[in-house]
Amino acid sequence: MGEDKLVAKPGEVDFPQGMAGVVARESTKSFVNGQEGKLYYLGIPIEELAKHSTFEETAYLLLNDRLPTTEELSTCTKKLSRHREIPGAVIDFITQAAPNDHPMAILRTAVSMLSAFDSDSQASDAEGLLNQALKVIVKTATIVAAIARARKGKTIITPQPDRSHTENFMHMMFADELDDYYTEVMEAILITHADHGCNASTFTSIVATSSTSDMLSSVVAGIGSLKGPLHGGANERVMIMLDEIGDPKNAEAYITNAVAEKRKIMGFGHRVYKTMDPRASILHEHAKEVVKRAGTERYLQIAEIVQDTMIEKFGQAGIWPNVDFFSGVVMASMGIETALFTPIFAVSRVVGWTAHVLEQRADNRIFRPRFVYTGPDLESKYVPIQDR
Amino acid sequence: MGEDKLVAKPGEVDFPQGMAGVVARESTKSFVNGQEGKLYYLGIPIEELAKHSTFEETAYLLLNDRLPTTEELSTCTKKLSRHREIPGAVIDFITQAAPNDHPMAILRTAVSMLSAFDSDSQASDAEGLLNQALKVIVKTATIVAAIARARKGKTIITPQPDRSHTENFMHMMFADELDDYYTEVMEAILITHADHGCNASTFTSIVATSSTSDMLSSVVAGIGSLKGPLHGGANERVMIMLDEIGDPKNAEAYITNAVAEKRKIMGFGHRVYKTMDPRASILHEHAKEVVKRAGTERYLQIAEIVQDTMIEKFGQAGIWPNVDFFSGVVMASMGIETALFTPIFAVSRVVGWTAHVLEQRADNRIFRPRFVYTGPDLESKYVPIQDR
Repeated sequence: MGEDKLVAKPGEVDFPQGMAGVVARESTKSFVNGQEGKLYYLGIPIEELAKHSTFEETAYLLLNDRLPTTEELSTCTKKLSRHREIPGAVIDFITQAAPNDHPMAILRTAVSMLSAFDSDSQASDAEGLLNQALKVIVKTATIVAAIARARKGKTIITPQPDRSHTENFMHMMFADELDDYYTEVMEAILITHADHGCNASTFTSIVATSSTSDMLSSVVAGIGSLKGPLHGGANERVMIMLDEIGDPKNAEAYITNAVAEKRKIMGFGHRVYKTMDPRASILHEHAKEVVKRAGTERYLQIAEIVQDTMIEKFGQAGIWPNVDFFSGVVMASMGIETALFTPIFAVSRVVGWTAHVLEQRADNRIFRPRFVYTGPDLESKYVPIQDR
Repeated sequence: MGEDKLVAKPGEVDFPQGMAGVVARESTKSFVNGQEGKLYYLGIPIEELAKHSTFEETAYLLLNDRLPTTEELSTCTKKLSRHREIPGAVIDFITQAAPNDHPMAILRTAVSMLSAFDSDSQASDAEGLLNQALKVIVKTATIVAAIARARKGKTIITPQPDRSHTENFMHMMFADELDDYYTEVMEAILITHADHGCNASTFTSIVATSSTSDMLSSVVAGIGSLKGPLHGGANERVMIMLDEIGDPKNAEAYITNAVAEKRKIMGFGHRVYKTMDPRASILHEHAKEVVKRAGTERYLQIAEIVQDTMIEKFGQAGIWPNVDFFSGVVMASMGIETALFTPIFAVSRVVGWTAHVLEQRADNRIFRPRFVYTGPDLESKYVPIQDR
């Protein structure tokens, strides 16, 4: 666009708000087919990965663009295992901040602190960046588990080398007080949330890294973006709504009223999906078993009535349940407090952030779009303060 | 763009790399005329502001879209003054991290920590966000000064309520060991770096806030972006080059050789400017007096020969000195170590970040562009590990 076009009156220049439909870059990582409700990582349908894969393998896939051989996976798993622990100073900060600070803000600071204890944190070559990615992926889980424990005043649990990523995460969160079945469910949650095209937090991460900044800076930027209620915060608000509804028999009337009053119903609608979010279907299936084991059938009954009512009213208009709608039901049933939903989202999405950072850095160009200037006339005079 | 166009072979879909020329949004804050080498804040030429304005007034202008009256400025200055101090725990972190961590990483963590000590940090209404902006603007200066002192093992100096922002910053950095003239120069540096259209760190900040995240998350994201050598790090590398050249008589040959070897000359060329960066001219003027007082004429002599040689070779092609070229000479002459150049840039640019966050939030839409998917075929099978 010519520079003369970049000075205009408000609304005069036509461009897509929120960069809807604008291309940020090429990517091999994931593809969202919003019309058909499909999500792929490296071409593989998310349903297949959620059913057959593991967190470690999915992370390898997204970071390296292919599934690992047995040997590659074993090497990668060992590497991950070595880096799970976090410095004592980070644990101290988490413990002190837990009663006052927002859990995502604690996560942001704790991840940011890691560079003070890692002489390789400023790596900028491909191998160094990949190592940074592996480290921050595992440490994010350790940090989030520590935040979960600290919020309840419980002792922090250290990771165990012989357990998988998700087993460790559940162990550090719950001290083996939960049925192993829930670890499977958490694995599905972590796999399904790992990447999702050019979402706002991933976009934040690649914009940050495009100045050739370090890996932790990009992840910290992604955490700051995911923290926002319009992004990671949505499933917390779904649970608040389900609690407000309280009883399945109130659900339909609640939605009808809310719609009449033009209130936003959380967990529905998506910039890209115009049909059922495939992740919502996967989590809906898990929810059926989880609520039975947990005795929280009520949540799912309410959620299903809300879903059916919403689809009846808005399905034609392309508004369908998104991933946030059932993930809250599943996690709340597992005994996870709502304030931790977004941090757990980060435990998964850190894989996508780091994978896209590696991709961006392989053929980097700094992101530098333009604003349309709609301010006061150019060449305005500086008026001395006594004359204002 | 239709979804069918979003699956392609590498290079098949044409789009601007690094979003060059793409419109991010409307903005009233600043305008860069790259052809004519002009920069305006709210329509006022940067030269006027650098000459007549103050940091506080420029911050008010960018945050509120107009220059303040005497009373408004006095109220704003008092507010800023009240928030200068930083929590003891943040000072402790800075002191402990200073010997090991990158100064921009320390700044990122220190700013991120602030939310743990501020019950208003999650504000999301316009007034709350503005208050958060004012707080983080002043505290960034206090943090950077503390980093500067801690790096040298010196005691941290607390801010004084009766001094201006820049006076405080210089006092906390140098304990009044410097001539007041340098405070004037620092004021010009802070004014000229405060905003610059949709640069990478500002863009990072508004993308982060578009999920309706909190102010500190956006500033932390901006710091992470500015930290990158392609953005804030450039003036450090100018000084390294000037030191390498060492003597004015080597300058022309150095550049001729570097050009012949296709090495990048730091401090030249800009995505938007195709002529002299007006900030470079302002800082060049200040440099003339600074090097005289500091006895560092050699730096400026080398810089001027480099400048002239480069303009002769590449001026026609639109490659001219940018802001980074003279800011390093000025700051190094003032006795500021190169590692602090980017943190000082942040002390200024935090005004632009916060101003753009306020603007974004006033009519927010989440940034969610798309990737062109160039990965493996969609509907690829998940191959079990034993068959890979």
